[in-house]
Amino acid sequence: MIVDQKILLTEEEIPKQWYNIQADMPEPLDPMLHPETHEPTQLPPFLFSSELNRQEFSKERWIDIPEEIRDVYRIWRPSPLYRATRLEKALKTPAKIYYKWEGVSPPGSHKPNTAIAQAYYNMKEGIERLTTETGAGQWGSSLAFATKLFDLECMVYMVRVSYQQKPYRKSLMHIWGAEVVPSPSNRTQTGQKLLEKDPDSPGSLGVAISEAVEDAATNENSHYTLGSVLNHVVLHQTIMGLEAKQQFAKIDLYPDAIYGCVGGGSNFAGAAFPFLGDKLRGERKDLDVVACEPAACPTLTKGLYEYDFGDSVGLAPIVKMYTLGHDFIPPKIHAGGLRYHGDSPLLSRLTKDGYIRAEAYHQTDIFDAAMLFAHTEGFVIAPETAHAVKGVIDEAKRCKETGEEKTIFFLNSGHGHFDLSSYDAYFEGKLVDYEYPAELVKRALENLPKVG
Amino acid sequence: MIVDQKILLTEEEIPKQWYNIQADMPEPLDPMLHPETHEPTQLPPFLFSSELNRQEFSKERWIDIPEEIRDVYRIWRPSPLYRATRLEKALKTPAKIYYKWEGVSPPGSHKPNTAIAQAYYNMKEGIERLTTETGAGQWGSSLAFATKLFDLECMVYMVRVSYQQKPYRKSLMHIWGAEVVPSPSNRTQTGQKLLEKDPDSPGSLGVAISEAVEDAATNENSHYTLGSVLNHVVLHQTIMGLEAKQQFAKIDLYPDAIYGCVGGGSNFAGAAFPFLGDKLRGERKDLDVVACEPAACPTLTKGLYEYDFGDSVGLAPIVKMYTLGHDFIPPKIHAGGLRYHGDSPLLSRLTKDGYIRAEAYHQTDIFDAAMLFAHTEGFVIAPETAHAVKGVIDEAKRCKETGEEKTIFFLNSGHGHFDLSSYDAYFEGKLVDYEYPAELVKRALENLPKVG
Repeated sequence: MIVDQKILLTEEEIPKQWYNIQADMPEPLDPMLHPETHEPTQLPPFLFSSELNRQEFSKERWIDIPEEIRDVYRIWRPSPLYRATRLEKALKTPAKIYYKWEGVSPPGSHKPNTAIAQAYYNMKEGIERLTTETGAGQWGSSLAFATKLFDLECMVYMVRVSYQQKPYRKSLMHIWGAEVVPSPSNRTQTGQKLLEKDPDSPGSLGVAISEAVEDAATNENSHYTLGSVLNHVVLHQTIMGLEAKQQFAKIDLYPDAIYGCVGGGSNFAGAAFPFLGDKLRGERKDLDVVACEPAACPTLTKGLYEYDFGDSVGLAPIVKMYTLGHDFIPPKIHAGGLRYHGDSPLLSRLTKDGYIRAEAYHQTDIFDAAMLFAHTEGFVIAPETAHAVKGVIDEAKRCKETGEEKTIFFLNSGHGHFDLSSYDAYFEGKLVDYEYPAELVKRALENLPKVG
Repeated sequence: MIVDQKILLTEEEIPKQWYNIQADMPEPLDPMLHPETHEPTQLPPFLFSSELNRQEFSKERWIDIPEEIRDVYRIWRPSPLYRATRLEKALKTPAKIYYKWEGVSPPGSHKPNTAIAQAYYNMKEGIERLTTETGAGQWGSSLAFATKLFDLECMVYMVRVSYQQKPYRKSLMHIWGAEVVPSPSNRTQTGQKLLEKDPDSPGSLGVAISEAVEDAATNENSHYTLGSVLNHVVLHQTIMGLEAKQQFAKIDLYPDAIYGCVGGGSNFAGAAFPFLGDKLRGERKDLDVVACEPAACPTLTKGLYEYDFGDSVGLAPIVKMYTLGHDFIPPKIHAGGLRYHGDSPLLSRLTKDGYIRAEAYHQTDIFDAAMLFAHTEGFVIAPETAHAVKGVIDEAKRCKETGEEKTIFFLNSGHGHFDLSSYDAYFEGKLVDYEYPAELVKRALENLPKVG
């Protein structure tokens, strides 16, 4: 029997409001603290738009999406919900597997869902220029795309080693009009000092954040932006889960299990939170919500739930979250993305409280999963996304053993067109699996900020 | 006023038949001739499936699409028809611009429309292995994708200089399980002879074709495949134009002008022929159908309508078409793709008879067009496709002058994610415009096969 592979929505069905899970949390989040005074604080107002700051701490369940943002979403939204029939067949599983495919956006991932919103609000508040950091370049290219559509300037500090190794992400940012410099750069005092010490410094995400923040703080009409972790980023990403709920409703289904990959947590949260809200309100008590992370950066499975700095250098506000310590640096051998030391405070809290469980996977296994996906469903996915696929495949195999006809949903967060060097490393047998040592977690404890 | 940006169809609306324009041609095509005897011939039966050979010469207007092929098409079809409202606004044109977006397929272009069909028919006839050549790799990756889904082996001879310069297209083929070797290779006698003479030979499309043909002819259960030019390839691509007709019908429109880029002609023909059939039957006499080609390889605008070899080495059947001479090699400075010396015989004949007109563009201009498209519509398109966008922008500007509210349709044949080095060359001012010299066309005449 031939079934539809895609469940589509019309543009009119693009949600008109984002879902704010803070309205349904059993208890409010622990406050965000100032990095020096340790007093409750907001996001620095000289770095963030006031509307984004309002959204960050809002307890309203629904937050209106301005029509100008919905109009840009129409370029690629609503994204299709796919039934993975060929993958099911290959696994001989009685489970039904569905995925939401965000690779259809111009930058090729879920990131523009929030980049568009952040560019819009900053534009409305008179900001003319946005800065950010980027590692592999997925966030930087999404912000470049968004700023071009709202006629803002865009300045991206790209970790030097990525700038050299991933030249095509840089090209993509150039096409959308962004200025991209390798970090450390001579554009900031932070960068200048580092280059004086070491002119060949490979850079790091921590340094790039410091440069982007310094740039925004010292240049007129400039603000800083972040592509994950923060509550307002998670909020904007709920557009995905809200669409998926409508799509499942059209086929009279509701998922039994939801899988997503976790780096900072925004793609996972964006897909899962609109369903998880039902669980929080007691309507879907059995919903299984699974965060998939790399064994090389096992924040949720081996980290600590503590107050820590959001950045690597101790300038950002302190938030309570799962963390491996803000000076954690993932091993160089790790090709699979998802390298952040912490996680979204919302995701962390809900994991701590038992509403989400986490699994960690090795990189050779996640590439095996990505290959099976490409061989059956066709699409070549990002290594980050492959963590979710690995989780789904394991679950589908369990269903084969038990005979359960579960409905499994996962977020397919983006394509791997700019990650093929990682696939090459996999083919060439160069990927080494790395188990994060328990002693390192202990040592990280010593560097956490002493709060309260 | 907000209008829908995408006109969508359901999977059930995927056409059930391809459209064969041979049924509506005023006169039949001149026969295909044997390369040595110059007698009318079919495609070599030891290289092509018998059903594809039947389709090549069929005069039936409609040819059924097997359900197994439609089922694979469902992975990405029906592709969306977009209204390019932001591009219209930037051009301040009264024209309405629509494009069909084929970048949503897993390999990222229109090529799998025929790769899937070719893999299917060969599989049905007991063939276990397909060979082909590829230059930049768009066709090779589409065939790799198609053979994986129908469980066939795939052998790709990739022009050595592309193999070295475009490593990620090779990675993509590897992901879908194809074997890819740089051509010339030591897998064939043709390759061995060339490597003996010159171990560092950069290769050429002509040599790669010869190797792929020799491989298929000398290995059991192997057939050869071609990604453009031939009638059966054009036939399979009409799925695009047929969908577009349905999509325009949903908004009560019919295009006044159709634009597409032309290399071998299959993407252009696939989009235009279902509409052009109406013109041939006298129902849409004013329809303007425009083939957009590079000034560096101006087959339709400066070539001759004559019998010539389909390949560069004189092994393939002789067909009547526009040609620059089968030993034509586009200048190395040309970054914009579309490098074939000839064109689809169907497209050539309809151009000769005045139903299609052709325009040639310089590469700096087509990249300017691609940049404007990325800045307004968001998507980063292939340099090939940018030729069509250049034509559309020129037409939309003319409409601004005349006030005409024309409906312009073009085929957006694929994304440029694997072509960013060409964009880099554009940014760096390295692209040189090249006018194909008239003397070279004259000289090409001397090398045409003497027929009849």
